Amino acid sequence: MVRFESDYLEGALPEVLAAIEEINYDQTPGYGNDKYCDAAAAMIREKCAAPEASVHFIVGGTQANFTVICAALRPHQGVVAPVTGHISVHEAGAIEATGHKVIELPTSDGKLTARQVRECAEAHWTDPNRLQLTQPGMVYISQPTESGLIYSLAELEEISAACREHGMYLYVDGARLGVALVCPGADATLADLARLADVFYIGGTKLGALFGEAIVITNKDIDRDFRYIMKQRGGILAKGRLFGAQFGALMKDGLYERTAKREVDLAWKLRRAFEAHGWKLYSDSPTNQQFVIAPDAELDALAEKYSFSEWGRADEGHRIVRFCTSWATKESDVDDLIADLSTLRVEA
Amino acid sequence: MVRFESDYLEGALPEVLAAIEEINYDQTPGYGNDKYCDAAAAMIREKCAAPEASVHFIVGGTQANFTVICAALRPHQGVVAPVTGHISVHEAGAIEATGHKVIELPTSDGKLTARQVRECAEAHWTDPNRLQLTQPGMVYISQPTESGLIYSLAELEEISAACREHGMYLYVDGARLGVALVCPGADATLADLARLADVFYIGGTKLGALFGEAIVITNKDIDRDFRYIMKQRGGILAKGRLFGAQFGALMKDGLYERTAKREVDLAWKLRRAFEAHGWKLYSDSPTNQQFVIAPDAELDALAEKYSFSEWGRADEGHRIVRFCTSWATKESDVDDLIADLSTLRVEA
Amino acid sequence: MVRFESDYLEGALPEVLAAIEEINYDQTPGYGNDKYCDAAAAMIREKCAAPEASVHFIVGGTQANFTVICAALRPHQGVVAPVTGHISVHEAGAIEATGHKVIELPTSDGKLTARQVRECAEAHWTDPNRLQLTQPGMVYISQPTESGLIYSLAELEEISAACREHGMYLYVDGARLGVALVCPGADATLADLARLADVFYIGGTKLGALFGEAIVITNKDIDRDFRYIMKQRGGILAKGRLFGAQFGALMKDGLYERTAKREVDLAWKLRRAFEAHGWKLYSDSPTNQQFVIAPDAELDALAEKYSFSEWGRADEGHRIVRFCTSWATKESDVDDLIADLSTLRVEA
Amino acid sequence: MVRFESDYLEGALPEVLAAIEEINYDQTPGYGNDKYCDAAAAMIREKCAAPEASVHFIVGGTQANFTVICAALRPHQGVVAPVTGHISVHEAGAIEATGHKVIELPTSDGKLTARQVRECAEAHWTDPNRLQLTQPGMVYISQPTESGLIYSLAELEEISAACREHGMYLYVDGARLGVALVCPGADATLADLARLADVFYIGGTKLGALFGEAIVITNKDIDRDFRYIMKQRGGILAKGRLFGAQFGALMKDGLYERTAKREVDLAWKLRRAFEAHGWKLYSDSPTNQQFVIAPDAELDALAEKYSFSEWGRADEGHRIVRFCTSWATKESDVDDLIADLSTLRVEA
Repeated sequence: MVRFESDYLEGALPEVLAAIEEINYDQTPGYGNDKYCDAAAAMIREKCAAPEASVHFIVGGTQANFTVICAALRPHQGVVAPVTGHISVHEAGAIEATGHKVIELPTSDGKLTARQVRECAEAHWTDPNRLQLTQPGMVYISQPTESGLIYSLAELEEISAACREHGMYLYVDGARLGVALVCPGADATLADLARLADVFYIGGTKLGALFGEAIVITNKDIDRDFRYIMKQRGGILAKGRLFGAQFGALMKDGLYERTAKREVDLAWKLRRAFEAHGWKLYSDSPTNQQFVIAPDAELDALAEKYSFSEWGRADEGHRIVRFCTSWATKESDVDDLIADLSTLRVEA
Repeated sequence: MVRFESDYLEGALPEVLAAIEEINYDQTPGYGNDKYCDAAAAMIREKCAAPEASVHFIVGGTQANFTVICAALRPHQGVVAPVTGHISVHEAGAIEATGHKVIELPTSDGKLTARQVRECAEAHWTDPNRLQLTQPGMVYISQPTESGLIYSLAELEEISAACREHGMYLYVDGARLGVALVCPGADATLADLARLADVFYIGGTKLGALFGEAIVITNKDIDRDFRYIMKQRGGILAKGRLFGAQFGALMKDGLYERTAKREVDLAWKLRRAFEAHGWKLYSDSPTNQQFVIAPDAELDALAEKYSFSEWGRADEGHRIVRFCTSWATKESDVDDLIADLSTLRVEA
Repeated sequence: MVRFESDYLEGALPEVLAAIEEINYDQTPGYGNDKYCDAAAAMIREKCAAPEASVHFIVGGTQANFTVICAALRPHQGVVAPVTGHISVHEAGAIEATGHKVIELPTSDGKLTARQVRECAEAHWTDPNRLQLTQPGMVYISQPTESGLIYSLAELEEISAACREHGMYLYVDGARLGVALVCPGADATLADLARLADVFYIGGTKLGALFGEAIVITNKDIDRDFRYIMKQRGGILAKGRLFGAQFGALMKDGLYERTAKREVDLAWKLRRAFEAHGWKLYSDSPTNQQFVIAPDAELDALAEKYSFSEWGRADEGHRIVRFCTSWATKESDVDDLIADLSTLRVEA
Repeated sequence: MVRFESDYLEGALPEVLAAIEEINYDQTPGYGNDKYCDAAAAMIREKCAAPEASVHFIVGGTQANFTVICAALRPHQGVVAPVTGHISVHEAGAIEATGHKVIELPTSDGKLTARQVRECAEAHWTDPNRLQLTQPGMVYISQPTESGLIYSLAELEEISAACREHGMYLYVDGARLGVALVCPGADATLADLARLADVFYIGGTKLGALFGEAIVITNKDIDRDFRYIMKQRGGILAKGRLFGAQFGALMKDGLYERTAKREVDLAWKLRRAFEAHGWKLYSDSPTNQQFVIAPDAELDALAEKYSFSEWGRADEGHRIVRFCTSWATKESDVDDLIADLSTLRVEA
């Protein structure tokens, strides 16, 4: 079985593993209070052109999301998110478990617009019975989105402005942020995010780390006592140095961006083959995730040799599936898939 | 600086690192649904003589504790723990953050007794106003305790019986369980724990893994939907296979016990030297943690070269400190410390 | 200003006040452990033909909702509700504050269907990644709904069956249950609710009590230790006898139903006048709440003398408003409103 | 049975009932947005000499406590309280259910000292591993305490100063505040509390209201969006006007203080009789609660005719019990009890 179902199905980039091994016998203080973490954080601050930002490393994305959100909100506040957002549907109610409602806004493509954000805030603040409602305290978006789309710099500028007008924080989930920095059409940089968001994270797990996400906080109100809350919610790793080693490697000499670029290039190779074969794109994703609408019979045939991820049913006879490339995807596997695809007969 | 302040200051056993590397390019399903995790879980079940037990891997101890406790208790219940317990004082209110009170019982040595457990339950159930109290639903102990003591098999039998008489679960925090299995005086086995507790965990982080704890659940009521709760609380690792690789290595050919034994042996070497030097033991710990009461001046002198962990003040002129050995402690460092110790003049 | 904006704008029925006064100097144990509560609970059990049911009195509807829901669900479960449901939009995130997601289903009229309930459960249980989702553990509906519609007995039978098929509890919010028992078209009785739901409440606040709702639990799993959870969540009233006095009065000689009937009759008088005047009904409510779509100019004119409740905008020039009758509504005020209405010129 | 077990065993003062009845048919907006609440709040602000304070009415003490505490604290913070405090042992884990630890300090008499408060804060802030601890964010005391003692003005000044030095809020639970204002030795006024505490409440339930506590917030940080949090936690009463009526009556012409004074006077009559009879005081309470250590045989004899509250066992043969007077206690009942007491033979 050759797996394309996700981008966390293998271990880590050799550079990352080597960095872990290299410091294996060094003794350092625990909990991330070590020179490797300090150095990695400094590299991230520099890349973000945010010398005052705080950087906190945490194991996974769900942890990052609920820790940030519960640190930022007061008890009565909720977080605004697209109804398809990761915190809305893929985290088992993790946000609600911290006591906060996810205020889910409709979306056709997984993205929120500045207009929606504004309307949501205005609807709240003009409601005479607003005490009965959940006050929107933060906007959550992900870059790229669940279906692989990216926000342009202009869109981010507008959403950020809408948030600031209405006293809401802006939080960007960057589980796959690397690919959004380098894919075709990308025009928002890390420095833009640091400027426009109050907090965001740079995902490592899906870009070649064993695990780990780097939370970047530019708003001091959110950062206050943040590590207490990380500890309380299980987000402080005893051997925190592992983050320093991994992110140190990823941030060095552009490894993070190169890895993302390779993922994206292979994904586009797949995308072109899917389109050439006559499959429709479900989402115009420029990233390492490619979503297609394909005939059941063809998918079933491919499934004997390749894994991919089921995204839903398009109609009788077709379903939506996702193919993902990762840091470890072999170009030969991509080529094999393309070759096998061309031998399938389209039946629909 | 040679560090003795804790047992998580280095990376991982070479066998553990090798196991991670060995499978680095294998593709497996995410979230621990892979053959490596399955195999490691099977090895653990066998060691525990608990063929029906469930094994769940989780990154760290605080996560293990709050996930188990919030899965087991109903909203109005609390968990009984020694006032010095890890969940009482070292987890930043993590249990309370899941909504449950830690009912802290006094202790002179960090251990609970069956009698205390019984009295606590009886005090609750005979109180005419018990609705105003927090109902005790679970008893939490750690093996070894925070100060390095271990429960004997007889003590565990009695505590378990007390819990079962009063409808409370018994949970054993095994962050350093390995050393409690092999140290002088140890007579409770993994199979005993599986038989006497409803749930416990076998710590990896402090016994040579990069990270990871193996939760063993023998009570089906606690296990029901446990993985949903893990997911919700941030405890499911995307590349869960890392647990399989690590625990597979630790459980193979007695590596876990050998590592624990080596930690304990070096700790006893230190202990004998401390006693020979005239320092008093703060705790009669047979494990890899040694607690001593020592003169400030001597400690300050040692601190120029060695790190250890501050545990409190004993009196004017003396404080309590902890020395820990780890999987990576070099015998030569222990010997150096002993040699340096012998050159210090006792001033108190 | 004559007020029609809600049904909790006055005090209590004279019989209710008299009952409170009558026992004013009696001494009783606190917390509802008194003979008046016992007697009222017995009357409710009898009316519900549910001799085994537990009855718990609580001050208000939001308290009733979050206490029932958090007592019934395990941490990873959510409660399914219409997107317009009271717990979805009018309780300031109270359910989420107990850690549980409200799984909001779309609805055109405020009601859920058995089919929706079934599809929601099946979508969950057949999802290969269901651990990432919130498990539906309970279905919440209200009788009548937010927009005044009622579920027929047949509909309740079907929803109940769907819940039981999929292991979900059924909870019926009866803040205005009285009017749903007596209004035109009503065919589901208290005994039906007791048989079909696992838990429901009989609202007092909106039917002539000073305050108070009677929670009826027929499922023993939900009832276990329920009063602990009430206490913990602030739901136990010190002078609980006040519930006994009030519900004793309401349940005696059909006062509850008579009060509901009077509210409904006056509401229908309004409804007929609204329709005669040419206003469209926003909702075909047979209850004491009447929702109409009316021209802004007419509403603004009426608003000088009468209050009503704003429900949203229908289109440019029209908005949706609610008129409510209560136990205290004077027929002469209804007649005045109707008279004033007839003098308005319809402009739209 | 003549009841002395508590002070909430009867209804309400006739003036309070009359005030409720008097406005019974008035129509007012719901949720406490009415002129009666406004007027009562103004009277309270004036009595507190705190023209800028916010006043919020809530049904009961447990609600008041958890609402205030969860509004004031950030997620990682805990509230410091005496180990015997109401929130520590009599609220079924209500504070923990909002996610916050109660940091319980030892006490011999139920009171905290400024020194303890200071030491607790300093211990936290000087701990190198303080991230593992619960940060103390608020100090909770009650006036009077659970065992009926009162804090002097000087003590309150010192505790307040200690809190402000260490960035902690001071919260005073005033369930029985009235008696602490008028009893022998009382020297702290409402204005003192408003000046020294960040928030406190004036209890109505135990001083002649049917129910209701008036929360007074002088610190704007706590008051921000407070009513959202009240709503979310079930603390907003639909017919909020009932608070206005009741507190309006209590605050008028000194009724609150007169009621408290009468309770205290009757309690002292009992106290003097207990002492004359040879019973020891368990607590030197100057308030309406009198705690004595008395022989079992005598208590058992009295219990045939009088109820009192069991507070624990003093020794073999003696137990500690509480006698309470209330707004409704009849002087003739007190006299009867004293007469019956004198006929008992002391056996111990």
